[in-house]
Amino acid sequence: MSKSAGFCQGCLHYVFDYETPKTLVIPNIRLGFAFRFTQFLVVLYVVGYVCVVQKAYQVTDSVISSVTTKVKGFALTNASDMDPRLWDVADYVIPPQGDHSVFVMTNMVVTPEQTQSRCAELPSPSTTCTDDCDCREGYSDPRGSGIQTGLCVNYSLTVQTCEVLSWCPLEIDTELPQAQLAAAENFTMLIKNSITYPMFKFYRRNILPHVNSSYLKRCKFSRATDPDCPIFRLKDIVSEAGEDFQDMAVKGGVLGIIIDWSCDLDWWAGKCYPKYSFRRLDNKHPDNNVAPGYNFRFAKYYKAPDGEETRTLIKAYGIRFDIIVFGTAGKFGIVPTIVNLGAALSFLSLVPVVSDWFMLTCTRKRDLYGKLKATYMAEDTVAEDVSDSSFSFIFKYTCIHSSLMEFSIDYQ
Amino acid sequence: MSKSAGFCQGCLHYVFDYETPKTLVIPNIRLGFAFRFTQFLVVLYVVGYVCVVQKAYQVTDSVISSVTTKVKGFALTNASDMDPRLWDVADYVIPPQGDHSVFVMTNMVVTPEQTQSRCAELPSPSTTCTDDCDCREGYSDPRGSGIQTGLCVNYSLTVQTCEVLSWCPLEIDTELPQAQLAAAENFTMLIKNSITYPMFKFYRRNILPHVNSSYLKRCKFSRATDPDCPIFRLKDIVSEAGEDFQDMAVKGGVLGIIIDWSCDLDWWAGKCYPKYSFRRLDNKHPDNNVAPGYNFRFAKYYKAPDGEETRTLIKAYGIRFDIIVFGTAGKFGIVPTIVNLGAALSFLSLVPVVSDWFMLTCTRKRDLYGKLKATYMAEDTVAEDVSDSSFSFIFKYTCIHSSLMEFSIDYQ
Amino acid sequence: MSKSAGFCQGCLHYVFDYETPKTLVIPNIRLGFAFRFTQFLVVLYVVGYVCVVQKAYQVTDSVISSVTTKVKGFALTNASDMDPRLWDVADYVIPPQGDHSVFVMTNMVVTPEQTQSRCAELPSPSTTCTDDCDCREGYSDPRGSGIQTGLCVNYSLTVQTCEVLSWCPLEIDTELPQAQLAAAENFTMLIKNSITYPMFKFYRRNILPHVNSSYLKRCKFSRATDPDCPIFRLKDIVSEAGEDFQDMAVKGGVLGIIIDWSCDLDWWAGKCYPKYSFRRLDNKHPDNNVAPGYNFRFAKYYKAPDGEETRTLIKAYGIRFDIIVFGTAGKFGIVPTIVNLGAALSFLSLVPVVSDWFMLTCTRKRDLYGKLKATYMAEDTVAEDVSDSSFSFIFKYTCIHSSLMEFSIDYQ
Repeated sequence: MSKSAGFCQGCLHYVFDYETPKTLVIPNIRLGFAFRFTQFLVVLYVVGYVCVVQKAYQVTDSVISSVTTKVKGFALTNASDMDPRLWDVADYVIPPQGDHSVFVMTNMVVTPEQTQSRCAELPSPSTTCTDDCDCREGYSDPRGSGIQTGLCVNYSLTVQTCEVLSWCPLEIDTELPQAQLAAAENFTMLIKNSITYPMFKFYRRNILPHVNSSYLKRCKFSRATDPDCPIFRLKDIVSEAGEDFQDMAVKGGVLGIIIDWSCDLDWWAGKCYPKYSFRRLDNKHPDNNVAPGYNFRFAKYYKAPDGEETRTLIKAYGIRFDIIVFGTAGKFGIVPTIVNLGAALSFLSLVPVVSDWFMLTCTRKRDLYGKLKATYMAEDTVAEDVSDSSFSFIFKYTCIHSSLMEFSIDYQ
Repeated sequence: MSKSAGFCQGCLHYVFDYETPKTLVIPNIRLGFAFRFTQFLVVLYVVGYVCVVQKAYQVTDSVISSVTTKVKGFALTNASDMDPRLWDVADYVIPPQGDHSVFVMTNMVVTPEQTQSRCAELPSPSTTCTDDCDCREGYSDPRGSGIQTGLCVNYSLTVQTCEVLSWCPLEIDTELPQAQLAAAENFTMLIKNSITYPMFKFYRRNILPHVNSSYLKRCKFSRATDPDCPIFRLKDIVSEAGEDFQDMAVKGGVLGIIIDWSCDLDWWAGKCYPKYSFRRLDNKHPDNNVAPGYNFRFAKYYKAPDGEETRTLIKAYGIRFDIIVFGTAGKFGIVPTIVNLGAALSFLSLVPVVSDWFMLTCTRKRDLYGKLKATYMAEDTVAEDVSDSSFSFIFKYTCIHSSLMEFSIDYQ
Repeated sequence: MSKSAGFCQGCLHYVFDYETPKTLVIPNIRLGFAFRFTQFLVVLYVVGYVCVVQKAYQVTDSVISSVTTKVKGFALTNASDMDPRLWDVADYVIPPQGDHSVFVMTNMVVTPEQTQSRCAELPSPSTTCTDDCDCREGYSDPRGSGIQTGLCVNYSLTVQTCEVLSWCPLEIDTELPQAQLAAAENFTMLIKNSITYPMFKFYRRNILPHVNSSYLKRCKFSRATDPDCPIFRLKDIVSEAGEDFQDMAVKGGVLGIIIDWSCDLDWWAGKCYPKYSFRRLDNKHPDNNVAPGYNFRFAKYYKAPDGEETRTLIKAYGIRFDIIVFGTAGKFGIVPTIVNLGAALSFLSLVPVVSDWFMLTCTRKRDLYGKLKATYMAEDTVAEDVSDSSFSFIFKYTCIHSSLMEFSIDYQ
């Protein structure tokens, strides 16, 4: 046989010789029982907690959602300074389109007939004046209402303030004692929500298949009696969030309609329904609140017959409904299953370590077992050299800088 | 040597004695081959499926996206009851700003010259009346159009209905046979989308670097010929979603333009392009649909020379284009690699279990192998006590409540 | 003892006999040290990198966010062709509501007094004409401004163009040298952002608890001095994004205000604050840009006393501020901890493989160790049959198609 053939055969032996650990079998039922019991605990844990409770065998995907909303209802205002006026959806939903965020106006400060002109600034310590010298032409106070013209004019019979160039008359932003569109609590909102889990090609709507048209015409959402109805009475939503509608309507606020589409899409689970919950998203009574509530200003622009532009400025208070759709769907996936099984098997490999410790520590015949299990090599080993030079270096380095030398000597 | 020195030496032995399993080497090529083959299968699985197919070695991040859109085109309406009128982008895109959701009006019911006044309610079983007693002053029917005044007035020559305070004349919401802005099918929409994967500091736009200005001026998206063009003809989008534009334009609908930015950011993959797809998001022909299609009401407010406010109410039907950007980018990460390698290694530790079973069950010399591999402890073991008291308790408890006792006796 | 009892006892032995590997203990301190050192490296890696740096022991959840914004400030325009005009928030924020996307107009092209009528098209190679034959009645050029009437009319004294039916006069979309609302750089924006991590029932606002009302009334965000102030001066935001406000204001753009709520919610970490960053999201100077900057057209509709509708068309340039909230919160979770510990333990099971290799290759007494560790089975093994027939088939198949046969012979 040639030399290379011998080398090949060596390689073959190296690769294909089967090496299996020698074992010692101990027919001790208590030891065996302890071993199996520990194994059982690990398996129980893995199956029970990781698989059943946490569903770690699933791949997950996040929801993609599309929302349309439609508000219905009308309200009559009968303020002392205005004619009776009916408000319908085109009036109080701003902007008009029902997206995932809908604003319903509940209160307002209206300043009609504003034109670009000059008028006396609202009185405040920094705007009151006694003569023109107190006002600077062209100065614009960030807290003011316009650009100062440099004149000091009568605001009322007793107060003089600097004149400003602005949309006049200025808005007088008084405190509002109560909501003008109090009837908004009876408005209803229809929410249509379709969702997709793209990874699983799963589509669903919040109008469930078993819900029919005639039911939808008369139903109103109620957690107890109509949990599947997608039509919400505004007062009910606000109540569910733990707030009082009329309180909230005065200064406005942001209310989250949270739709949870968390689903288990495995066929043995098979159910995937939306769960609605409601939370106020802004802070009601904070110590550190600037601009409490929710409001914004908008204007309707008109043109007078003489071509002059006038506007009606409206500071709209109201409730913004944010429809927040979230959810994660899980479905059996081979990769997480393997990863989690792998982790579990690793724990099984810990069991013999525990059992061996138990055997060599807590059994009566521990010395006998120890002797049978482990063969102790009796000869001198410390004087030996390590042939790997880098390791040898590490050792020498360590020996010089530590007391390992003495250890080694003692170690004999 | 002192006692503590002896203790130390014991500890040293405990910590630094190297304990290695004794093994039995069996030069059986078939056994060796079976062993290596099983190992190979596991490695193949891990490399092939977990790494190549599922890319489990990657860390992933979700996309953050910003969208701007711009619609172009105009349409002429020539309805019998209106003058010919040209509609441009400022007229039919409501609200005007192109965000991730753009509404293009395709049909409408216009009710001009509405004022706050009194008029006869639209006839329906609940609103027809014969005299004033049938109408309740101040009553507001949620399905009606306003607040009843308590009078019964002529709606037409033959029908009397309750009078309401409302925006009059009331909207007559007739069925629309066809879309008035049918030409909207030729409108184009430019979508500019920039995305970020913050974890990887990766930025990209849907206008790809190799696309030049002159191409963008004339291109239209087409899956076959121009898949990178970010300008979409509305009819093409709707067709791609499997719908007919003119059908959808009559009652409106919601159409999802889904941009998938799923990317493999590893340098050896290196490609990251948007993939467009289109889906109708609302339900077309459902049994249980309330308010089918997509529409909303808005108003344009005017002021008459005498200061009275009038409005033109428009019930706008149209297609809302929701641009939904999603995606997950993956890049090699050390943590998932380790977790998944760990799981794989765990499976490798299963291989000897399988091989040993094969060796001790299926080979001819299984008895010989069994004898050489495992040393069976021959002496009496059951009478032995367990020194750990808690374990001892568990055993006693178990023994009393089960038939383990008998097992133990038989076991001899 | 009956036969079944004997079978049972066999089963009991099979299940409850405790099998433990026989080991060889080598009191070689260098070998032991190498073994422990390798173990230490693995543990260090796992603890140091996987746990401390990557926090792989945490379950994570994505943020759910609600944003409201409020812009303050006013600007005076004094263009030569218009009267001085003051712009306040109702004028320049379009649409008026402050959502997660706010548009602040900085520049504009205003075309007042448009009516539905006929006028000469803007001159361009395709619209200039010499007589009516050059114009097609009813033709609508996608790049034009309306529907051609078929007449050729004077655009100016020297140029004739086709007449179109459109909103006339047409918008003349000139290049704008500078922003008209240059003062917008001093506007401030208040951002109120509340977030939720639903999995952890964790709620927080970007107005932090330690911030009081009086501070909020005067503060402005500054990364150095006021990093917690939620009020942003527009110029500062744009500067932080590395842009010049006046440059950006001319043609508009999209600016991302990115709020990062990445949090470690474990009690020993306990801090969860928003981190603001700013980035321009559109492309500033690209080669392949269509419609650079950010603009859109909207109109204000008026009714003339004679009932004719007129509109003021505004091409609004400006900066859209997209408030992008993202973040992932992590909290100690038992499942990822187990998965990652499992992976780590798998690596520990690699250590003996490494140590054995070291022992059998690099130590002086490697032959002695090898002999003591592994028992080599000396007798003939190749001739043996495999009793499992499927395996046997595989082997025969392999033998025929490869040179394994020869290997087997050599192997002796």
